[in-house]
Amino acid sequence: MKGSESDARVDRSAPDGQRPGRPFDHSRDALVLSTTLDLLAERDYDRVTLDEVATRTGKAKTTLYRRWATKDDLIVAAIRAAGRPPEVDDLPDLGSLRADLLAVVDSPWLGGSARRLAIFLNLASAARGSARLAPIVRAEVTEPYVDVYRRLLERAVERGEVSAGLVPRIPLLAAVVPAMSTHALSAGSGPVERSHFVAVIDDVVLAALGVVPPRD
Amino acid sequence: MKGSESDARVDRSAPDGQRPGRPFDHSRDALVLSTTLDLLAERDYDRVTLDEVATRTGKAKTTLYRRWATKDDLIVAAIRAAGRPPEVDDLPDLGSLRADLLAVVDSPWLGGSARRLAIFLNLASAARGSARLAPIVRAEVTEPYVDVYRRLLERAVERGEVSAGLVPRIPLLAAVVPAMSTHALSAGSGPVERSHFVAVIDDVVLAALGVVPPRD
Repeated sequence: MKGSESDARVDRSAPDGQRPGRPFDHSRDALVLSTTLDLLAERDYDRVTLDEVATRTGKAKTTLYRRWATKDDLIVAAIRAAGRPPEVDDLPDLGSLRADLLAVVDSPWLGGSARRLAIFLNLASAARGSARLAPIVRAEVTEPYVDVYRRLLERAVERGEVSAGLVPRIPLLAAVVPAMSTHALSAGSGPVERSHFVAVIDDVVLAALGVVPPRD
Repeated sequence: MKGSESDARVDRSAPDGQRPGRPFDHSRDALVLSTTLDLLAERDYDRVTLDEVATRTGKAKTTLYRRWATKDDLIVAAIRAAGRPPEVDDLPDLGSLRADLLAVVDSPWLGGSARRLAIFLNLASAARGSARLAPIVRAEVTEPYVDVYRRLLERAVERGEVSAGLVPRIPLLAAVVPAMSTHALSAGSGPVERSHFVAVIDDVVLAALGVVPPRD
């Protein structure tokens, strides 16, 4: 969709068959898009530039602009290329709520928890600054991720691990791990350790649900 | 300290007694600083400019730059002028942990919960982009605020409302209200309602501590 829009734009500016430069090498999209996410993991949205993406990937800036007219186009393409969390289609089912929640923490989605957290924070600040990005970040990143937690909590009710009376609290509790981890990254001065996620799951989520975690 | 540095800088560029322009009217600092926080409540750090502060306060840009050489100087001054949460020196003591926690939610600090939350989010993104701002935001905003929650939870243990065995969990649980409220503002599409704070206190914090809240 985006590709055909770009092509149409370029075609208007040059006669057929005389388009300047080489055609965009679509096989290298993946590198450009993952480099864009690398930058979003390293720095604030406002400091992510097409120039830097061009430098890191060795592509000409004009080539990038021919394919993605704006930075937001590029970021949207990078978000879409990363896809939804794999857990959306393959919900962890490890026999206990605690193991399932830890499997989401340990998910490789967006490069694992450290890169994922940094990307979340910067996409959130991007979304605040861009009315176009905001609904896309919500629908394609934040909501699918919180939704995985919500479904795990609902399944724990079905399994009898969590009391059915707590169902109304599930939407709120599903946001606890994402909220506490971005807060820790934002408020702290270094990376968020796995032990922090474990404590949030045991001492906040499971404790609030009255589930006593097995101490290992 | 900042004022005398500014004066020294201006004095070097003009002979004594012939300083161009009127001296800065310090009585109007408060307006400039609260306007800076207003802007930080409305938009991302990168879109807060000295130009806009000048426009809104009716002051000349040069006048502002004479007093605050950079945007970060102005933001640091605005943070310091706002002061710490009043609860730091006057911890709410309303007889129950729930009432005390709600008193912090309802605090007028930084203009009440809606403005405060928006400022928190934008200062967090400012801190990520500025090595100079980061420790100041942490020490003067985030930590004192989380600390108020921590002290309220500790006092609930002293009161016998919360089991002493849960003391090790208090630092983590003290971050729940700030984390869940900035997450809700960031992930949602509108202001965070007071009912959200109440649900976080009852269904997450008090539930995790095994305190049954009185339903009203």
